[in-house]
Amino acid sequence: MPKSREIHLVARPKGLPAQDDFTLVETSVPDAADGQVLVENRYMSVDPAMRPRLTAGQDLNVAMMGGALGKVVQSKHPDFAVGDLVSNRLGFREFFVSDGKGLTKLAADPDLSLTVHMHALGMTGFTAYGGLLHIGALKDGEQVFVSTAAGAVGSVAAQIAKIKGCYVVGSTGAADKAAWLKDEVKLDAVINYKETPIRQALEDATPKGIDVYFDNVGGDHLEAALRRMNTLGRVPVCGFISGYNSGHSNVSNLSNIIYSRVMLRGFVGTDFMHLYGDFQRDMAGWLKDGKVKYQETILDGIANAPSALIGLMEGRNSGKMLVKLA
Amino acid sequence: MPKSREIHLVARPKGLPAQDDFTLVETSVPDAADGQVLVENRYMSVDPAMRPRLTAGQDLNVAMMGGALGKVVQSKHPDFAVGDLVSNRLGFREFFVSDGKGLTKLAADPDLSLTVHMHALGMTGFTAYGGLLHIGALKDGEQVFVSTAAGAVGSVAAQIAKIKGCYVVGSTGAADKAAWLKDEVKLDAVINYKETPIRQALEDATPKGIDVYFDNVGGDHLEAALRRMNTLGRVPVCGFISGYNSGHSNVSNLSNIIYSRVMLRGFVGTDFMHLYGDFQRDMAGWLKDGKVKYQETILDGIANAPSALIGLMEGRNSGKMLVKLA
Repeated sequence: MPKSREIHLVARPKGLPAQDDFTLVETSVPDAADGQVLVENRYMSVDPAMRPRLTAGQDLNVAMMGGALGKVVQSKHPDFAVGDLVSNRLGFREFFVSDGKGLTKLAADPDLSLTVHMHALGMTGFTAYGGLLHIGALKDGEQVFVSTAAGAVGSVAAQIAKIKGCYVVGSTGAADKAAWLKDEVKLDAVINYKETPIRQALEDATPKGIDVYFDNVGGDHLEAALRRMNTLGRVPVCGFISGYNSGHSNVSNLSNIIYSRVMLRGFVGTDFMHLYGDFQRDMAGWLKDGKVKYQETILDGIANAPSALIGLMEGRNSGKMLVKLA
Repeated sequence: MPKSREIHLVARPKGLPAQDDFTLVETSVPDAADGQVLVENRYMSVDPAMRPRLTAGQDLNVAMMGGALGKVVQSKHPDFAVGDLVSNRLGFREFFVSDGKGLTKLAADPDLSLTVHMHALGMTGFTAYGGLLHIGALKDGEQVFVSTAAGAVGSVAAQIAKIKGCYVVGSTGAADKAAWLKDEVKLDAVINYKETPIRQALEDATPKGIDVYFDNVGGDHLEAALRRMNTLGRVPVCGFISGYNSGHSNVSNLSNIIYSRVMLRGFVGTDFMHLYGDFQRDMAGWLKDGKVKYQETILDGIANAPSALIGLMEGRNSGKMLVKLA
């Protein structure tokens, strides 16, 4: 019966989450009974989409939910063997027992790092892939804008657009991220919105307008993009991080979509699961060829999970934010 | 060489257009030369979409543009005969000469009033038809909300949804219009947003949520609808009358489209011209069967064209606003 530590939400954040909104709880997890496995989480994921769930959706005073990658350490379940890697939604804890529901066995690619399966080659990358190609219906050579382009989703979206021969503008809020996007990812234009107001910077960076805006931000970024959308442009809306902490995010010029006949569509990765096989083949190839680069910020230990979440909201990560649990 | 009177825009309105923004000019129109026709306009159309063009698009100190239905009174053009009815974009004037470009001969349906070709059976009705069925991808029996449901476009959209077996909620801002929607059009629920705040009224009127919101308003109506959209809901955005006079129209909860994976799409009627034949057959049948009812507000004489436009913005029309010119 291993000891496990887990993170509980104890107060609903007002605005930016704070350390006091979370607490670390030590608990005992039973051994696996018949039909069960005991899983030790190795890595857990921290994502912007977790923020709205802190306001509504995530129960208080229980272990929080979130994506994780674990290893089976005891098995009395016919479908799982000790040593199997399993993707699960039971992050924010070190150990758990399961009857196998909600666990997906992961066949890790030996030529790639394990953690890449939690971002570029996982749901994060798939969200970028399907959002851009399926929801955004991207055509080769189009004009593309990606916000939070150095983030886990944005960086993949921007690089897929480059692979498809597009002119790609990315925005970010830090000089080191802007440098990475320019020097390593080689975007056509990079905007640091903390240095230049997004509206003017985007106008300067998009002389041929925008066909597809991959939106992770909403608010002022979406307003700036709506001024630049070409006729029949598309805006896959993946995130609205501008509003996650404030609880609102005004858009004042949405009527622009009428004159340019623009489509906006909110989406989540499960909207296009039929593309998952294509995605895995394409992305594994791009990663091995170095066509998709990535950055990771990995904090160590479950006690740092709240810091990871808060840091993500403050933009203190580079690329995918993970917490190493074991 | 007939005398013609025409309306010029002389100042760009701030907010609601005022009489002083327009002037009536008397002019002489030449007789038709070889290859030309002389047209006398019989009716002209006044539409909400004209408002943004007053701010940008419509030149000052020339005859304004707008949909009209005229009759050929002189012809030296092989394709037109005296007496032909011609749809044109040269409203706001009594006479004009043309080389035939931009004129569309109208074969008026003898079983229907002439004016119906300028709304329910014209581009107004087609905008409702394609917006609802093509852009909105309406399915039989869905939950539908239409704003400005007593208006020229809204009333057609609402009635097509009823024909398709949907549960239909309509909003309007006047008691007489609400009564018409309830008693004549027989919508399932009618909201008078001047009596009950739209947010609460829409929540009460849509116990099963909304699958398709046909948006003519934007602003607070769109915010209220975004709170009620069902998963994979669709919002054909036809107009944003809430913002036409103020120049902006905030939407504070657009991030809702992510969780419900909602699509918004701005459109104009020319986006689906391939459906025009289907539309004319369907709509002529529905009008003759009394399945689509309509209201008209017809002001008399070119001098009243500014009043018609201002009255439309103030909601003083019932149904389609027209000006009879001859």
